[in-house]
Amino acid sequence: MNILAVGPHPDDVEFGCAPILIQEVAAGHAVQLLVCSKGEAASSGTPEERVEETRQAAQVIGAPVEFLDLGGDCRIEYNAPNRLLMTAQIRKFRPQVVLAPLAGEKWAGENQHPDHVAVGRLVRDAARLARYGGVEGIRDLPPHSIGHLYYYSITQPFQTGPPDVVIDVGPVEEKWEAAMACHRSQMRTRSYPDLVLARARTLGVSIGVEYAVGLWTNDPLRLRSLADIPLSSRYF
Amino acid sequence: MNILAVGPHPDDVEFGCAPILIQEVAAGHAVQLLVCSKGEAASSGTPEERVEETRQAAQVIGAPVEFLDLGGDCRIEYNAPNRLLMTAQIRKFRPQVVLAPLAGEKWAGENQHPDHVAVGRLVRDAARLARYGGVEGIRDLPPHSIGHLYYYSITQPFQTGPPDVVIDVGPVEEKWEAAMACHRSQMRTRSYPDLVLARARTLGVSIGVEYAVGLWTNDPLRLRSLADIPLSSRYF
Amino acid sequence: MNILAVGPHPDDVEFGCAPILIQEVAAGHAVQLLVCSKGEAASSGTPEERVEETRQAAQVIGAPVEFLDLGGDCRIEYNAPNRLLMTAQIRKFRPQVVLAPLAGEKWAGENQHPDHVAVGRLVRDAARLARYGGVEGIRDLPPHSIGHLYYYSITQPFQTGPPDVVIDVGPVEEKWEAAMACHRSQMRTRSYPDLVLARARTLGVSIGVEYAVGLWTNDPLRLRSLADIPLSSRYF
Amino acid sequence: MNILAVGPHPDDVEFGCAPILIQEVAAGHAVQLLVCSKGEAASSGTPEERVEETRQAAQVIGAPVEFLDLGGDCRIEYNAPNRLLMTAQIRKFRPQVVLAPLAGEKWAGENQHPDHVAVGRLVRDAARLARYGGVEGIRDLPPHSIGHLYYYSITQPFQTGPPDVVIDVGPVEEKWEAAMACHRSQMRTRSYPDLVLARARTLGVSIGVEYAVGLWTNDPLRLRSLADIPLSSRYF
Amino acid sequence: MNILAVGPHPDDVEFGCAPILIQEVAAGHAVQLLVCSKGEAASSGTPEERVEETRQAAQVIGAPVEFLDLGGDCRIEYNAPNRLLMTAQIRKFRPQVVLAPLAGEKWAGENQHPDHVAVGRLVRDAARLARYGGVEGIRDLPPHSIGHLYYYSITQPFQTGPPDVVIDVGPVEEKWEAAMACHRSQMRTRSYPDLVLARARTLGVSIGVEYAVGLWTNDPLRLRSLADIPLSSRYF
Amino acid sequence: MNILAVGPHPDDVEFGCAPILIQEVAAGHAVQLLVCSKGEAASSGTPEERVEETRQAAQVIGAPVEFLDLGGDCRIEYNAPNRLLMTAQIRKFRPQVVLAPLAGEKWAGENQHPDHVAVGRLVRDAARLARYGGVEGIRDLPPHSIGHLYYYSITQPFQTGPPDVVIDVGPVEEKWEAAMACHRSQMRTRSYPDLVLARARTLGVSIGVEYAVGLWTNDPLRLRSLADIPLSSRYF
Repeated sequence: MNILAVGPHPDDVEFGCAPILIQEVAAGHAVQLLVCSKGEAASSGTPEERVEETRQAAQVIGAPVEFLDLGGDCRIEYNAPNRLLMTAQIRKFRPQVVLAPLAGEKWAGENQHPDHVAVGRLVRDAARLARYGGVEGIRDLPPHSIGHLYYYSITQPFQTGPPDVVIDVGPVEEKWEAAMACHRSQMRTRSYPDLVLARARTLGVSIGVEYAVGLWTNDPLRLRSLADIPLSSRYF
Repeated sequence: MNILAVGPHPDDVEFGCAPILIQEVAAGHAVQLLVCSKGEAASSGTPEERVEETRQAAQVIGAPVEFLDLGGDCRIEYNAPNRLLMTAQIRKFRPQVVLAPLAGEKWAGENQHPDHVAVGRLVRDAARLARYGGVEGIRDLPPHSIGHLYYYSITQPFQTGPPDVVIDVGPVEEKWEAAMACHRSQMRTRSYPDLVLARARTLGVSIGVEYAVGLWTNDPLRLRSLADIPLSSRYF
Repeated sequence: MNILAVGPHPDDVEFGCAPILIQEVAAGHAVQLLVCSKGEAASSGTPEERVEETRQAAQVIGAPVEFLDLGGDCRIEYNAPNRLLMTAQIRKFRPQVVLAPLAGEKWAGENQHPDHVAVGRLVRDAARLARYGGVEGIRDLPPHSIGHLYYYSITQPFQTGPPDVVIDVGPVEEKWEAAMACHRSQMRTRSYPDLVLARARTLGVSIGVEYAVGLWTNDPLRLRSLADIPLSSRYF
Repeated sequence: MNILAVGPHPDDVEFGCAPILIQEVAAGHAVQLLVCSKGEAASSGTPEERVEETRQAAQVIGAPVEFLDLGGDCRIEYNAPNRLLMTAQIRKFRPQVVLAPLAGEKWAGENQHPDHVAVGRLVRDAARLARYGGVEGIRDLPPHSIGHLYYYSITQPFQTGPPDVVIDVGPVEEKWEAAMACHRSQMRTRSYPDLVLARARTLGVSIGVEYAVGLWTNDPLRLRSLADIPLSSRYF
Repeated sequence: MNILAVGPHPDDVEFGCAPILIQEVAAGHAVQLLVCSKGEAASSGTPEERVEETRQAAQVIGAPVEFLDLGGDCRIEYNAPNRLLMTAQIRKFRPQVVLAPLAGEKWAGENQHPDHVAVGRLVRDAARLARYGGVEGIRDLPPHSIGHLYYYSITQPFQTGPPDVVIDVGPVEEKWEAAMACHRSQMRTRSYPDLVLARARTLGVSIGVEYAVGLWTNDPLRLRSLADIPLSSRYF
Repeated sequence: MNILAVGPHPDDVEFGCAPILIQEVAAGHAVQLLVCSKGEAASSGTPEERVEETRQAAQVIGAPVEFLDLGGDCRIEYNAPNRLLMTAQIRKFRPQVVLAPLAGEKWAGENQHPDHVAVGRLVRDAARLARYGGVEGIRDLPPHSIGHLYYYSITQPFQTGPPDVVIDVGPVEEKWEAAMACHRSQMRTRSYPDLVLARARTLGVSIGVEYAVGLWTNDPLRLRSLADIPLSSRYF
């Protein structure tokens, strides 16, 4: 399985879905990280520092990372040119599974960083356009149909309704903390790890494990049989 | 895997989720049907005829069927006594997977037969109460925790938003028709099979197969890995 | 009655609302088709072929067709310049009724082709701006107030909640198929007619006719009396 | 056209949809009022006074009125026995159009008088059960299929989202006030007419008339042609 | 200020809103606890033990507690008799502020313990009926209008959308733990305090404090000036 | 308290939230008006006239007014450059409270003037970006964290669901009318004051006062104690 995880800023994948990625890498799946800015608008950390922090975090996760310029931190537009840039990335990495920031219409809404919303929507549309053969400007990259698009939640202060999918990440919680800790420059202001760990703890307790992370699906999950889902999330 | 499928009237399971059950039986899973009335309010068919039709349909599906009296067709209440009757059934059958009519809050709403809504809610609550040890009146049946509660759609005239889960049922479409055809008395008025087959055809075409049936989840699906879902529902 | 039907790509009006248009033409109403790209991003079919297919389909429908360039297939932006281009079209055709792709907030959501969403929103806004006298750049076209804005659904894989309005199109189903069949180049990949006919069959059976198409309203329907609606959609 | 308007308490139809009824009576349609309690829990007015006030208001509207006992004011249950009592009424009056309090799922929600919610739901379900031939206890009344179910809003403090249907009632506003004024006992405490007239004025101004009343549909409106809706609600 | 906090089972107020109550008691406000069952259906703990645990927890909170019999644990119905029993309680305690379990329509939905939903709805309706003078059976208690109805969340596994109101409860977190710990019998199975503390921690971090509890409003908050709300919940 | 009220066109603040501002000025708070176009697309009134009308209305309100060019009336884009222009304004005025047009996701939706939606979203995002230290192009203005973001409704024809906050504005209704009347050029076409006064009257009657205006919150309201909200909106 080939997984592409897209983050708007250098630390978003780490806060939102890193423990899932860590587990998939350990299971032998190929994970690629794609970061859409260098976090240049943050109160702390230079772009150079943040790129370096990202590379370290990617090593902890165990996945290669690339950067895509969509106009810069706090300036990412949801528009046609960016949609095509993202489409080209999907055709290049040819993933079966894509992870994008929870955006727009699936619960989280727009009341969050506008770059998160823009990237979530760009990835959703790009996953569609990637299979149309005639899209001008990217015809040299052969069309590609992804299998699954999942959304992850970054640092929304409040939960976003029940996730569609939940995964126990207790076994890799320490490695997750290590990946987040790579983003040293971001720890100077607000404590993002505190927030995401408290949230993962809440979701974990609710299903009877230590820590859990939720995902939201873009499409119905196609099962062969109900036996495809042996674990249960019913606990309380 | 042990599956309990609950229907308010004699033909609801057949219209709503029979092809999934047919496939699970073929895969070696144990399926139990539970019907909560004898359809005595229908314009056509005596209760005796309808019980007999149900038994024939159950044979086509390949599963035993039992009847539970909740007050009679068009008289099923969503109340505490019925909730406990249903809880007792869950403790008796001890299923890992429960299938109930789509009711109330997951899209379908209350704009449907009130018995459908009542049974959907009774099953949802009963699946919860079944694990509480002290519930009076059913203490002789040991508590039981189900693993999954899925909802199926019966004959809602309009679709109910995208399902959470979708299953290709093309391979058993003929057997499904045969199971529905057992309910001869109900074919005299409106053509329910036409409706549900047209709906299954629409959902099927949308994912690139002949016929498909959707389910709605009550709880997040707990995965071990994203690789648990190898098939994709993305087609158009 | 003067009807303007707007489609993002050459075949969208045909898939989404052609049978309604065919019936309105037969009833003596003036229908104008407006197509906002030449489908140049499709996997099959050159722009020239697709324009020709569109002209043939328009002849089957019995309505003239014009093309509007909004940036090209897969590149249509929801922005101010396009909003004014669309506003100019509405002032030019001066329709009482406008049909646009179901977009954004009325059920269908953004999980569809981004051009569909963009055109739906552009038409909605243009129908508003068309009556403001001072809008720069289009002052030579006198302001115009439309009477009704309806949305139609194109090829959303799943239904989109109950439509607000439903129309029996059984009598023109063959002509509808003929109109869709004009788009020969699009039949090479996925079978769109199969999808939209299965959907129209489902909606048709649900109201007791062979085929039906639904519309969603942008505004409350203003009636003179409840007797304005003599037909009923209640069947199951 | 045969219209049945159902109100939980003696003044609810008057506050909620009387002007529409006044206009339909004037247009020659048969209107029947059905009131489901005698308002015996009100702070002011005896049941006898309130019945008399209701009869006077019905005369102003120009329609006969009947009373149905569903357990008493503040005690109306949404349960199977009441559902059958209501079903019998629908079979008795055999209306093509039914008007019921806006309840439960169409915007208004449950945050209102529980009798309003209960009656809205009872009517919705009764309109369905009325066509099932075998419902025990009411078999002496032949089955009946209604054509339309509309909901009206009573005294919800806040509007309930845009109505699906809107009707200009300016021409009968004075007669409407007269009908409301019949409920003298209810004017001693809070000024309900002030509230509903302010609301009707807001809706009226919004469509460019003096006063308007909105309705919510239970089912899609089935049109023969888009020309069935000649008036427009677009004004601001 | 006079506060009435209503809980379905002996420990629900403790898990859901105890720290707010602890702070209001400390500020000199009068708090009354009302518990609607003795938790007799729980897997652990006799009714006698649970009553005793409740009394101890009430002492920690610093408020008197009473019990109301609504049919028993797992048997609480949302019906007219219970509605009147609850109305009588509101007339008896005459609170300005009422706290009830989050139920039905404000986010939390019905996918929780049915007693929680029933009590939430009963309190909502009772707060309305309490001001109607003529309600039979409780006329000896003079009518009462409450000022505010807030909902609290008990042990919903997932968060329920952003709360309308949020209160820093960090200063009383230890006392809150002590109140929960009084319910010794419930700690034998699942760890409810772990769940609610993780949730309060998540909400707390999100607003920049240690622990916070959210409430949902039944009605708009009426302010005199925007200066009534000096504190901000904006942090991340 | 420092309040910034942002309006897309010259009269929007006057129609939407002027009476609240009038009261806050009277209470000694500092109010700043920011208008994002000169209304140059209107059917009546030149830009010069409209600026003059705005200045007069601002004097009635008792607050200074500034203009911000975001591309012109009917051309305001929700994009990154405009987001930064708005962010700079927030850093310049450094308000504790910001009032913006109700947009997008909180009930009102997109079915309104596109400039209203764009400005509502721009302000929401700008209030977030204003605290990020590294945003390029506005680094000379020191970061600023606002305390509260409230949305006001302009001239939506229909109400937008219950507001989160409601304020009695009866005492300043005449001054409000005077402020609206300053926009003489806009009175030639549709009567906006009629609409907003009817709406304020409806909301007022609903809470037992003459006129009231509602606001919608972007974030949970953080209270110190439930006693922070002494007034009640419960009346009917």
